[in-house]
Amino acid sequence: MADNDLTVGWIGAGRMGAAMAIRLARAGAAPAVWNRTRAKAEATREHGCTVADDIAGLRDRDVVFTMVSGPADLESVLLGADGLLAEPGRAPAVVVDCSTVSAESSALVRAQCAARGVQFLAAPVSGNAKVVESGKLSIAVSGPRETFDRVAHLLRHLGRAVTYVGEDDVSRLVKICHNLMLGVVTQCMAEITVLAEKGGVSRAAFLDFLNDSVMGSVFTRYKSPAFVHLDYTPTFTPLLLRKDFDLGLALGRELDVPMPLAALTAQLVQQTVSSGRVTEDFAILLDQQAAAAGLALKPEDTPVDDGLAGGS
Amino acid sequence: MADNDLTVGWIGAGRMGAAMAIRLARAGAAPAVWNRTRAKAEATREHGCTVADDIAGLRDRDVVFTMVSGPADLESVLLGADGLLAEPGRAPAVVVDCSTVSAESSALVRAQCAARGVQFLAAPVSGNAKVVESGKLSIAVSGPRETFDRVAHLLRHLGRAVTYVGEDDVSRLVKICHNLMLGVVTQCMAEITVLAEKGGVSRAAFLDFLNDSVMGSVFTRYKSPAFVHLDYTPTFTPLLLRKDFDLGLALGRELDVPMPLAALTAQLVQQTVSSGRVTEDFAILLDQQAAAAGLALKPEDTPVDDGLAGGS
Amino acid sequence: MADNDLTVGWIGAGRMGAAMAIRLARAGAAPAVWNRTRAKAEATREHGCTVADDIAGLRDRDVVFTMVSGPADLESVLLGADGLLAEPGRAPAVVVDCSTVSAESSALVRAQCAARGVQFLAAPVSGNAKVVESGKLSIAVSGPRETFDRVAHLLRHLGRAVTYVGEDDVSRLVKICHNLMLGVVTQCMAEITVLAEKGGVSRAAFLDFLNDSVMGSVFTRYKSPAFVHLDYTPTFTPLLLRKDFDLGLALGRELDVPMPLAALTAQLVQQTVSSGRVTEDFAILLDQQAAAAGLALKPEDTPVDDGLAGGS
Amino acid sequence: MADNDLTVGWIGAGRMGAAMAIRLARAGAAPAVWNRTRAKAEATREHGCTVADDIAGLRDRDVVFTMVSGPADLESVLLGADGLLAEPGRAPAVVVDCSTVSAESSALVRAQCAARGVQFLAAPVSGNAKVVESGKLSIAVSGPRETFDRVAHLLRHLGRAVTYVGEDDVSRLVKICHNLMLGVVTQCMAEITVLAEKGGVSRAAFLDFLNDSVMGSVFTRYKSPAFVHLDYTPTFTPLLLRKDFDLGLALGRELDVPMPLAALTAQLVQQTVSSGRVTEDFAILLDQQAAAAGLALKPEDTPVDDGLAGGS
Repeated sequence: MADNDLTVGWIGAGRMGAAMAIRLARAGAAPAVWNRTRAKAEATREHGCTVADDIAGLRDRDVVFTMVSGPADLESVLLGADGLLAEPGRAPAVVVDCSTVSAESSALVRAQCAARGVQFLAAPVSGNAKVVESGKLSIAVSGPRETFDRVAHLLRHLGRAVTYVGEDDVSRLVKICHNLMLGVVTQCMAEITVLAEKGGVSRAAFLDFLNDSVMGSVFTRYKSPAFVHLDYTPTFTPLLLRKDFDLGLALGRELDVPMPLAALTAQLVQQTVSSGRVTEDFAILLDQQAAAAGLALKPEDTPVDDGLAGGS
Repeated sequence: MADNDLTVGWIGAGRMGAAMAIRLARAGAAPAVWNRTRAKAEATREHGCTVADDIAGLRDRDVVFTMVSGPADLESVLLGADGLLAEPGRAPAVVVDCSTVSAESSALVRAQCAARGVQFLAAPVSGNAKVVESGKLSIAVSGPRETFDRVAHLLRHLGRAVTYVGEDDVSRLVKICHNLMLGVVTQCMAEITVLAEKGGVSRAAFLDFLNDSVMGSVFTRYKSPAFVHLDYTPTFTPLLLRKDFDLGLALGRELDVPMPLAALTAQLVQQTVSSGRVTEDFAILLDQQAAAAGLALKPEDTPVDDGLAGGS
Repeated sequence: MADNDLTVGWIGAGRMGAAMAIRLARAGAAPAVWNRTRAKAEATREHGCTVADDIAGLRDRDVVFTMVSGPADLESVLLGADGLLAEPGRAPAVVVDCSTVSAESSALVRAQCAARGVQFLAAPVSGNAKVVESGKLSIAVSGPRETFDRVAHLLRHLGRAVTYVGEDDVSRLVKICHNLMLGVVTQCMAEITVLAEKGGVSRAAFLDFLNDSVMGSVFTRYKSPAFVHLDYTPTFTPLLLRKDFDLGLALGRELDVPMPLAALTAQLVQQTVSSGRVTEDFAILLDQQAAAAGLALKPEDTPVDDGLAGGS
Repeated sequence: MADNDLTVGWIGAGRMGAAMAIRLARAGAAPAVWNRTRAKAEATREHGCTVADDIAGLRDRDVVFTMVSGPADLESVLLGADGLLAEPGRAPAVVVDCSTVSAESSALVRAQCAARGVQFLAAPVSGNAKVVESGKLSIAVSGPRETFDRVAHLLRHLGRAVTYVGEDDVSRLVKICHNLMLGVVTQCMAEITVLAEKGGVSRAAFLDFLNDSVMGSVFTRYKSPAFVHLDYTPTFTPLLLRKDFDLGLALGRELDVPMPLAALTAQLVQQTVSSGRVTEDFAILLDQQAAAAGLALKPEDTPVDDGLAGGS
């Protein structure tokens, strides 16, 4: 079913998008890349991508991926006056969106694609740019099964796992569920790491054990340096996490699913926002938890493996 | 520092203990195994273990491991009239306990060992028998650093990761923290899996994505068959999990660490106990969450990889 | 400042509105009452009210109270084609709205009133019809202080307490806060009543003590018959309570106030909705809590005073 | 059944005990009062009490009340070498203990009384000294019904309400349940008061409405001055409240009653303890909540009625 001769376009070459496009290039798919700030697209050239002068230059590609910052950008690059779908009769067969948008935005874009005869796959991802580079990205995909089968080989170049989760836009729901877990697990890590530290175990030793235990995940591992060194350079901010909790709890409300742990975590995330520390990484949940326990944290001077080195 | 000629004894050949002893045997350590029900010890013979007639037969070994069901058993096999340490002047140099006991029990046994000139390592593990067999066991160890260095090579035969976490009995604290996470993560999985299902995504598809995502762990993977097939054959019961939450929250209380997520999860675990389903696996948190959401679960007829096949 | 000769109109003679209008009549204010279903207005006549044929008949009154079922009705009776404010130059000086609507709806109506030279007071109430009849209603009022002073004597006829809480529509916020407490207190009562019952104390005896203790309130007292007799005839449904929690948590979100207890209670209220019991009283939180504790409740055959008899 | 000629003794004349003894004196019961620090007993003389030189002086009284600071004191004054029950054949017919002790301590003392032919009533109270003085104290009583009937008229002199809740020591359970509500309600008040304040309503105005609403209680009223003026002079400390939550949650655990709100509140109370503010009133939950919301509280300069003036 897979068509190995598909031509590929790529819209959005931020750090994450660029890393993903480069993976496609290395796998031989030679994507043509467009980015609003052209320099970022140019930087992918040395890895095997080509650069498109404008979005129109991607209209003849078979498959175009989008990786942009939100619903407004997505609608603009697809449906805007100069957008990918602006020229009747000249559009890709398939659009695959890897951005994080709500199910509503996704459905709206899907309908507009359908009206123009374009198949649309919603394909949100789990991971950040460093995860992409290490080959550990995973992707949830929804839309027509047939379309998925046609382009799955391309998706598989992007990371270690691609899962088809159903029709329409349910992959957006799956991504939100995933992000709820990200918040709950981080708060849980904060609680038990502080407990262990007050009990006399260094954060480095505790997380070393935890990461190697059955509870360890790519996430617990790549969050460990922040916990040990108290380096809160942002990969994902409390504001973004709060937005995901808003979406997740709204879904729970709509589908009549009580979610006690998620709801409580949302309030603890809200508390980090209320404290004003909105530009740091959401790992500041650790700081907040330590303060609640009357514990003054100090950076530990221990090297910590984030598990992302030596990517494939 | 490691002494590769150490002779090894093993007390406790339940499913978990046997699997661990066998791993030592395969690595060439040739442990002599004693078990109250001798047949279980005998079953390890074909994998390279020898069988001791009584505990006294292990007193001349350099290192003796214990893997028993709780503090009473531990005290009995070590300190009882026929126990390992009952004969003055004839005892192993090192005892390594891999059982799950409280820090208090551990300290008591440690003191008794010290009084007899025996070094004691507390070495609780993360995983179940199947995890041992797959080579994915991990171990937190506390006690004298020098003793740890001397026997670490033996511990490393038991699983994929061995972490020295500090002096005395702090590894017990680390294990309890780990088990709190096990409860929180399971409740979180229950909440988001039910949300995804009510939103139209099968549990199999959702967990497939989750397990491959950055949030996936050995644990989420090996718990997935229970979630998909609703097979609640126990690996760990709500009663045992409640006991760990009792210990963990008591520690939080003693160390003045507020633990909102853990405390709330404890109440949800209590609810499964209150429902009377105490002999099933604690994965019934999923059932409870589905009932709370007004959702009647049905087993899904999809093969699910528990991630434990093909152990090393 | 009070003007004791003000003529009064009343829109909305449901059970609650009728009881309030009747209190005004008994105090000598002789309100003219209009209700969509005229029969309900007629029923107030014997208590000293007059009945208006249409809303237009109230335009010459000095003060008109509204007590309707929500924002749509409020906008209709005030701003609709036949509404109170539909005739330029002929409108009451003051409109006092006692309905429960959001701050947004309230602000919209206030602006429309202002555009027509009408002073608007937002005056949501605490209590149900039976509370009104017993004289225990309380009222939070916001809007221009001067207007409040002018009509406060009328408001005081309605119940036992009238509190001016500030400008504009802040009384709506106050009412929502109040309703959050109503949910939290009911869940708390459910938890401790079930604990006491499992410990051997009848619900009647326990609530008798609680109601007379420093924690007892008009609310705990009038909710006690439902808890003792398991009579869940609705005074306020889980759906309505959930709506108030939606509003309250949305406010917390907007104002950056984490609200852990309120958020958790919201999920427990959601659970009653998810169970499908949406037409009973929200006192079914007791049933839900008992089920969670594995306790089968039986009605207790003990007379319980709801504290509302012999109203003033 | 009541015996109006009973002679009365009183042990414990701290602020609370003295206020209670004085109420008995004013009602004509003329109690003989003993207190370890005699001066405190002497101070009750002007209100109609007499003073006993030693505990032995109370052995001939028909009924002796105890109001001491905890189980150790209770056991000492009753069962110690110089205690009330130390002389065989010379003891009161009835002992009524109003202290706050656990059900276990209570049962122990009850058994010792029974062995000496003394009837024992457990009669913990709701309120503080100021509540006693205002006549608003309430009492939960357990023990033999017949004994209760015999002395109920004395108990009724102590406050506004006396409730017989059952046999043995169940009144201790009732008191603990009551104190759980005290914590939950205070945290709830903190959440909604902070929400209202961030929304523009002064604490004084908000609590004024709340206290007069159906949710208002003697407790919300007498806690209001602390909330408005930020005066945290202790009536009850976070440490004492945490102890009650320990007892309450232990009971929930023993009786298999999940208590989500109580458990979460316990963690928030723990957080005040972890912050080190252990000598202030537990109303600092308000401060903690405000800090969590990023709000700096300032004392409001508004007179607030605590509802306890003009006691009866």
